[in-house]
Amino acid sequence: MQELAISLNTKSHKPLYEQIYQHIREEIQNGRIPAGEKLPSSRRMSANLQVSRSTVDLAYEQLLSEGYIESVPYKGYYVCSLEGLCHMEFKEPEKKERRQSREERYRYDFAVSGIDPDGFPYNIWRKISREVLSEEDPQLFQLGEPQGEPGFREALSDYLHYARGVNCTPEQIVVGAGNDYLLLLLHVLMNGSSRIAMENPTYCTAGHCLEAMGCDVISVGMDESGMLVEELEKSGADVAYVMPSHQFPTGIVMPLRRRMKLLSWAAKAEDRYIIEDDYDSEFRYKGKPIPALQGFDTAGRVIYLGTFSKSIAPSIRISYMVLPMGLLEIYRRKGILFSVTVSRVDQKIMEEFLRGGHFERHLNRMRAVYKAKHDLMLGRLRKMEKICRVSGEQAGVHLVVHFVNGMTEQEAVRRAAGSGIRVYGISRYRMEGQKRYEGEAVLLGYSTLRLDELERAADALEQAWSDNKKV
Amino acid sequence: MQELAISLNTKSHKPLYEQIYQHIREEIQNGRIPAGEKLPSSRRMSANLQVSRSTVDLAYEQLLSEGYIESVPYKGYYVCSLEGLCHMEFKEPEKKERRQSREERYRYDFAVSGIDPDGFPYNIWRKISREVLSEEDPQLFQLGEPQGEPGFREALSDYLHYARGVNCTPEQIVVGAGNDYLLLLLHVLMNGSSRIAMENPTYCTAGHCLEAMGCDVISVGMDESGMLVEELEKSGADVAYVMPSHQFPTGIVMPLRRRMKLLSWAAKAEDRYIIEDDYDSEFRYKGKPIPALQGFDTAGRVIYLGTFSKSIAPSIRISYMVLPMGLLEIYRRKGILFSVTVSRVDQKIMEEFLRGGHFERHLNRMRAVYKAKHDLMLGRLRKMEKICRVSGEQAGVHLVVHFVNGMTEQEAVRRAAGSGIRVYGISRYRMEGQKRYEGEAVLLGYSTLRLDELERAADALEQAWSDNKKV
Repeated sequence: MQELAISLNTKSHKPLYEQIYQHIREEIQNGRIPAGEKLPSSRRMSANLQVSRSTVDLAYEQLLSEGYIESVPYKGYYVCSLEGLCHMEFKEPEKKERRQSREERYRYDFAVSGIDPDGFPYNIWRKISREVLSEEDPQLFQLGEPQGEPGFREALSDYLHYARGVNCTPEQIVVGAGNDYLLLLLHVLMNGSSRIAMENPTYCTAGHCLEAMGCDVISVGMDESGMLVEELEKSGADVAYVMPSHQFPTGIVMPLRRRMKLLSWAAKAEDRYIIEDDYDSEFRYKGKPIPALQGFDTAGRVIYLGTFSKSIAPSIRISYMVLPMGLLEIYRRKGILFSVTVSRVDQKIMEEFLRGGHFERHLNRMRAVYKAKHDLMLGRLRKMEKICRVSGEQAGVHLVVHFVNGMTEQEAVRRAAGSGIRVYGISRYRMEGQKRYEGEAVLLGYSTLRLDELERAADALEQAWSDNKKV
Repeated sequence: MQELAISLNTKSHKPLYEQIYQHIREEIQNGRIPAGEKLPSSRRMSANLQVSRSTVDLAYEQLLSEGYIESVPYKGYYVCSLEGLCHMEFKEPEKKERRQSREERYRYDFAVSGIDPDGFPYNIWRKISREVLSEEDPQLFQLGEPQGEPGFREALSDYLHYARGVNCTPEQIVVGAGNDYLLLLLHVLMNGSSRIAMENPTYCTAGHCLEAMGCDVISVGMDESGMLVEELEKSGADVAYVMPSHQFPTGIVMPLRRRMKLLSWAAKAEDRYIIEDDYDSEFRYKGKPIPALQGFDTAGRVIYLGTFSKSIAPSIRISYMVLPMGLLEIYRRKGILFSVTVSRVDQKIMEEFLRGGHFERHLNRMRAVYKAKHDLMLGRLRKMEKICRVSGEQAGVHLVVHFVNGMTEQEAVRRAAGSGIRVYGISRYRMEGQKRYEGEAVLLGYSTLRLDELERAADALEQAWSDNKKV
C-alpha cells in the first residue's frame, strides 16, 4: 500500500502510538484502507514517521487486539474485513437542567432509610475487591449456583447462627438481590396463591410489592407486643409477614410469649408460613438482642429474610432468605430454575468481609456511630417532655415521637416542613384501604444525618413544635 | 485499674499494637475488664510494656473504632458496655470430599453457555472499579432508582441505538440482574395471565421459568426463517418469545420478511406482545447484523431483552429490557415498587466500560477470539463431509451439526461421551410435552474451550464419529 500520511502532534498529551493507532483505525473504518490491504512493515512505518519502531509496534498490537488487522506469519499485517466489527460512539450525557426536587427543599431530612454518609467501609471493600479480582479465577466469571455461592452461604449460616440464633444449614439459604426479589421468588414457590397478613402500620414497600404480584394483603392489628394472633387467626391469612426484632415503623420488639403464640398459629395448619423480616436487627443499643423467631421454629414454618442493606449499604443489593425444609424441596424443583441475581464477585467480596472479621468490626463501628446519634436525639426529645414522648428507642435507626401537647401528626409534619425539616408521619405506613393506625406519631430517622446536622435539626424541630401558634 | 499483664511476642509476625489490641479485646469480651473501667493512660501503658506510645495509641484507636472503649475528654478511655456488641467467629469452611461431578468425567465439554476462560477484561474492570470506589461518593451507597441509574441507562440507549438499531429513550430501559429476573418483573406487569408461544426447539431455561411463574407456555413450529406466524396465530398465544438475531439452539436468523409478518401479528390485537431475546447478537463473523426487531416496531409491541452475560460474563448479572410505551406506563405504577437488583457500583462500572470505549474494544477482541474458534471448528467439521453438515454458522458461539451418515443424535452424543467429550443433542431444547424437533442434530459450543483444546477435541470427535462400529 502507499505510505500513510499521518501528522503526529508531539506536543499532544496523547501518546504517539495512540495517534498512529487512531489514524489507522479511522482510515479502516472509513474504508479508505480497504480490507485485505497490507500495512507497511513497522520498520518502514517508523522510518517514515520518524518515531521508534516500538511505538509503531504498540499501535499495530492495539489494532490487532481489536480485530482491525490480522497478522499473517512471515508476511505482515493485513486489514481485516470490517463486516460485523463493532463501532460505537456515545453521546455526551445531557446536562439536564436539574429541577429542584422536593427533597432538596428540606434542610434536614430525617429519612428512615439509607445509611450514614461516612458509613460505607470503602477501604476494606476496595482492598477485598482488588484481591478478589486479582486472583484471575476464570470460574468466577462463569455462571454460579442459583442459590448463591456455597462458600458465601456457609459464611452466612455461621453468621446467622452466631449473631441471630438462626438454626440452618447453608443448603437452606437462598441469596438474592434485595428483599423485593426474594418475595417474587417466594411467590413462585408458594404457587402464587397467598393471603398475606401484615402488621398495621407496616413496611408498606413489601406490602405493595406483594399486592402487585397479585397477593391478597390483609392488615392485622397490633398491641404493645406486636401482631394480634387472635385477629390473625380470624383473618383467614395463610402467611404472616412480621418484623419481631424491631417492627417497622413502631419499633416494637415482640416478646417471647407472643412469638410462641405466633409459631403455634403457624403450626396449626398445612401451608401456613411466617415471613420473618429481620431487616435491622444488627443495631441494638441496650440489652441483648432476642434471637430470631426462626430459631424457635420446630414446625418448619418460618421463612427468615435478611439483608445487608442496613448494615452495609442499600445499593449493593445483597439479601438472603432461609427456607424451611418443606419450601426448600419446592425450591429445588422450581426456584432453582431462576439464576442467582447477585454477582459472583460481590458474593466473594461479602464472604471475605464476613470471614475476615471485617463485618464484625464494621458493625461495632456503625453501632457506635448510630448509638451516638440515637443518644443525642433521645436526649433532646426527652427534654421536650411538654411536647412529646418517645417510643421504639434503643434499637434500629429511627425513633417514634408521640405528641402530648395535643398537636396532630399532620400538624407536626407541616410545622417541621415549614422550618425546612422533613419528618415522616406514621400514618403513611398503613396499607391503603386499611383502617387508620390509631396512635398518631412522627418518625425521626437519624442514619443519614451527621451529628452536627442532628444537633441543628433538633434545635429547629424544638422551635417549630413549641411555637406559640395555635396547636 | 490494675496494670494489664500482656505478654508481647516481639518475634511474632503479628504487629505489637495488634497483640495489645487483641489482648484487651479478649479481656473485655470475657468480662475480665468490666464495663465502666478506665484503661491505663497510653503513657503509662507504654512505659509498662516497654513499647512506644504510638504503638499503644494505635491499639487504643482500634478498640475505640470498634466500640469496645470510649474516649471521655480530659479523662481517658473507658470500657463500653458490651450489651449488643457484635462478636462472631466463623467455622473453618469444610473441605468437603469433592465428588467427581459428571462434568469432570469429560475431557472436553462443548458447552453452549459460558465465556472464553481468558475472556474477562480483568485489567480494565479492576481499574474502573478502583476508580469508582475511590470517588467516595456517599450517594453511590444509598438506594438507587428502581429502573437503574440514569447515566447507565443513557449509555445503554446510545449503545442499543448504535449497535442494534434499537429505537428507545433511557426512560424505556429497565435494568435487572439477569433475564430470569426481568421475566419475573414482566410477569407482574402483564398481570400474570399470559399464554406465551416459544419456538421449538428453544431456550428452555426461559420456558421453564415462565412455566414456574404460572404462564401457559406453548411451542410453535419453525421453518428455515424461524417461528411460523400462521401457527402462532392459531395457538391463541398473546405473547411470542423469539430470538430473531440468532435463534437458540438452531442458529436461524429471522429474515426481514418474517420479522414484518411477526410484527403485524402483534399489532392485530390489544395486549399482544413480542419478547425479543437478543442474547448473543454481539458476535457475528460475516455480513452485517440485522438490526433488532424492536427497531421496526411501530405499534409498541416489542419488549427487547439484552444481557452482558455473553459479551462480558454471566456471573456479573447485568441485563436490561426496553419497554414499549404501553407497558412503560404499567411499569411506572407497578414495576417501580420493586427495587433495582443490580448494585449501583456495578452499574457505574458498566457505564464507564461503555462510555470509555472499553466495551467496543472488548467486543472486537472477543469477536476475533471466537471467530478463530468458529473458523477452526467449521473447517474441521466441513472436512467431515461424509459424516455431517453444519448449520447456524457465522454467528454466536456454537455450531449445529447434522449427521448425513445415518447416525442418530443419541448415538452421536453417546459416542462422543465414550471418548470423553460432551456434546449436546438438540432434542434437549424442546419443552416437555411438546412434539419432538424433527431435525436430529448436536450442538457444539466453543466459547469455553481454548484453541488447542478445540483442536484435540475435534480430532477425538472425528475419530469417535467415523469409527467403523455399527452406526
